[in-house]
Amino acid sequence: MRKIIVQKFGGTSVADTDKIKNVAKVVIKEKQNGNDVVVVVSAMGHTTDHLVKMAKALSPNPSGREMDMLLSTGEGVSIALLAMALQAEGYDAVSFNAMQVGILTENIHSKARIIDIKTDKLRKNLDEGKIIVVAGFQGVTEDGEITTLGRGGSDTSAVALAAALNAERCDIYTDVEGVYTTDPRVVPNASKLDEVSYEEMLELAHAGANVLHPRSVETAKQFAVPLRVRSSFKLDNLGTLILGVEKMELYKPVAGVAADLTQARIVVCDVPDTPGVAANLFSALAKENISVDMIIQSYARKISNTNDIAFTIDANDLSKTLAVLEKLKDKINAGDIKVDDEIAKVSIVGAGMIDRPGIASTMFETLAKLGVNIRMISTSEIKISCLVDKIDAQKSVKALHTVFDLECDVVADVKGDLPDV
Amino acid sequence: MRKIIVQKFGGTSVADTDKIKNVAKVVIKEKQNGNDVVVVVSAMGHTTDHLVKMAKALSPNPSGREMDMLLSTGEGVSIALLAMALQAEGYDAVSFNAMQVGILTENIHSKARIIDIKTDKLRKNLDEGKIIVVAGFQGVTEDGEITTLGRGGSDTSAVALAAALNAERCDIYTDVEGVYTTDPRVVPNASKLDEVSYEEMLELAHAGANVLHPRSVETAKQFAVPLRVRSSFKLDNLGTLILGVEKMELYKPVAGVAADLTQARIVVCDVPDTPGVAANLFSALAKENISVDMIIQSYARKISNTNDIAFTIDANDLSKTLAVLEKLKDKINAGDIKVDDEIAKVSIVGAGMIDRPGIASTMFETLAKLGVNIRMISTSEIKISCLVDKIDAQKSVKALHTVFDLECDVVADVKGDLPDV
Repeated sequence: MRKIIVQKFGGTSVADTDKIKNVAKVVIKEKQNGNDVVVVVSAMGHTTDHLVKMAKALSPNPSGREMDMLLSTGEGVSIALLAMALQAEGYDAVSFNAMQVGILTENIHSKARIIDIKTDKLRKNLDEGKIIVVAGFQGVTEDGEITTLGRGGSDTSAVALAAALNAERCDIYTDVEGVYTTDPRVVPNASKLDEVSYEEMLELAHAGANVLHPRSVETAKQFAVPLRVRSSFKLDNLGTLILGVEKMELYKPVAGVAADLTQARIVVCDVPDTPGVAANLFSALAKENISVDMIIQSYARKISNTNDIAFTIDANDLSKTLAVLEKLKDKINAGDIKVDDEIAKVSIVGAGMIDRPGIASTMFETLAKLGVNIRMISTSEIKISCLVDKIDAQKSVKALHTVFDLECDVVADVKGDLPDV
Repeated sequence: MRKIIVQKFGGTSVADTDKIKNVAKVVIKEKQNGNDVVVVVSAMGHTTDHLVKMAKALSPNPSGREMDMLLSTGEGVSIALLAMALQAEGYDAVSFNAMQVGILTENIHSKARIIDIKTDKLRKNLDEGKIIVVAGFQGVTEDGEITTLGRGGSDTSAVALAAALNAERCDIYTDVEGVYTTDPRVVPNASKLDEVSYEEMLELAHAGANVLHPRSVETAKQFAVPLRVRSSFKLDNLGTLILGVEKMELYKPVAGVAADLTQARIVVCDVPDTPGVAANLFSALAKENISVDMIIQSYARKISNTNDIAFTIDANDLSKTLAVLEKLKDKINAGDIKVDDEIAKVSIVGAGMIDRPGIASTMFETLAKLGVNIRMISTSEIKISCLVDKIDAQKSVKALHTVFDLECDVVADVKGDLPDV
């Protein structure tokens, strides 16, 4: 039986007709390898921005349903053009939108989740030797309503298609050469990872890597679809393979170091130590769609019977967050609200730390030796994050990189601008 | 029961967001009249040209299927934007593409004919008080393949929807104020028609009126859908109502005078008078998709046993036609081939001429008095056309306009440029 490879090309890879011709070449190369190929594409370059701009000119708050109707046209253009480019090279190609394939989603607009993908039409066309081009980012409900999948949607479409078709692999073509969490400004000799586990990729992604949306990695992990991230312009580079940790040949306890400089810390002081206060606070933030990252609640002070609640958010949500807190302040009887946006979250990530004790203490000791003050700590099974002053971020990353022996195949990822020190 | 009005807006009416806001106002006005409204829109302004240009950059001869996939995205944009504009004004609106409605067509790309339109989803949404916005120009096959309807497609979509929904009327909004077949260069006091029959409209359309594609008029006639052609920018003007002749209050024997200056005449001389020669000739032209208008075959000359075949074509097809004839000449043993493109077809059109004898002779006498030489004549039930020298077109139209008493409500339509005389 022939192997199925799913390929995904993002908006920059199909931004104009010349780039679409290049994509056609990449697709044909995979077909010539003797594989069946299903290609998922996003909308061309700035199409989505242009459509959103027109929508905003007509309505301050366009309905989700009509917005999805509108945005789904973007992939409609790119799939047809890519199919034409493949046909022009003498290959039998056919494009399908989500409705034609049957990419079934929940009946939620702008961020629907995929429920099921019909494969009969796809398999029939693959059996006829055709290259199939599918619209990413979009889906359809049982009632025939068009939905879109939200951020990272096309990656998720590709992974879900690979899972449904039991594909050999899902290749995500992008404008970087792999999972490059290394920031050369910090660690000049860091290089791309050849292999990384789903779990590490997830933690790196959440910690600041912009290569893949966590959602597509989660889907790949759930269905054990091997993912490859690679450049559509440098085909000699195999990029980074993302797969289950059990399939990895060997891995170090720490695979990467990440720094996220885009967060702000908020401390709500002197909150009464009564039940429901934290719930009130965080559900009010959730209602405004504000994502909270690290949370620390101090022990209640015996005398005042109050405590402090500290948490971090995306700095872009700062004014929205303060507005929520201002309204809530009296209701929950809170004291001062303190804001600090001169902070950085430094994380070490590695599936290997699960069964290797002492990793956390090594991290804390390393930072202590540098005189770096740790403001908050959070941990998961494969990640340890420390909140430090922004000015300490660079030396922290460098020191952790050295202490965990991450000379060349290991990675420091920085999100946001490092301060000059 | 509430009446259903179908409205259709072409590409120039939805060319930008300001124009879409204007369309929303027109739609809302009809809704405020207490009617249920179904709106059909074309793609925005130059969208189609832009899409075709990209397709041509990728493939010299893109497949019809992918071309239809590509072009159908154009209406996808305009329907969503119009629905948003209606919602922004506080009206409940919903957009549907052809696949969602179920506008079923033949499985032919780029010029499919509508077979059936499902109305259950439309009726359900109208019953819920919604304004429905439907994508024109596109359809879907039983197998879920996307098709387009070819030239005049959106008008045909609107008329077919009106027929399927048993609508009160189908209003075609355009950039002219009605069926203005009058060319002010010829007859300054001619004005728009308030009413015209389907049959007259068809003859006027074929004779040069560009307001409506004959195909949509044919569909309207078949299902007895009253059509109104009017301007989306001048709502105080009711435009022109096109309906069955039996519903018209009164009509003159001649409703309009048309001149078509875009034809060329070809004479194939000395063709042997044997069976099958004309069939050979015209099937060869049909194969090249060349439309032939007037045809005259002379009586066979007794001595040579040959005759001449004369016919007219669109002057744009002239070189293609001559290439066909050059190949065919020896095969059918024809003599010289003569070309004359300094000709004009002058027609009078009117449903009233059916039961009023003497119209044709009045036309011929009028032209004879002017010294105009009639080269060819063709007649239908409601049209008489004379081929004259191009230089005689203007005075012929003026004289016919006077003799048939068409001072104000009657029409001269000129296609192509009149020569200065």
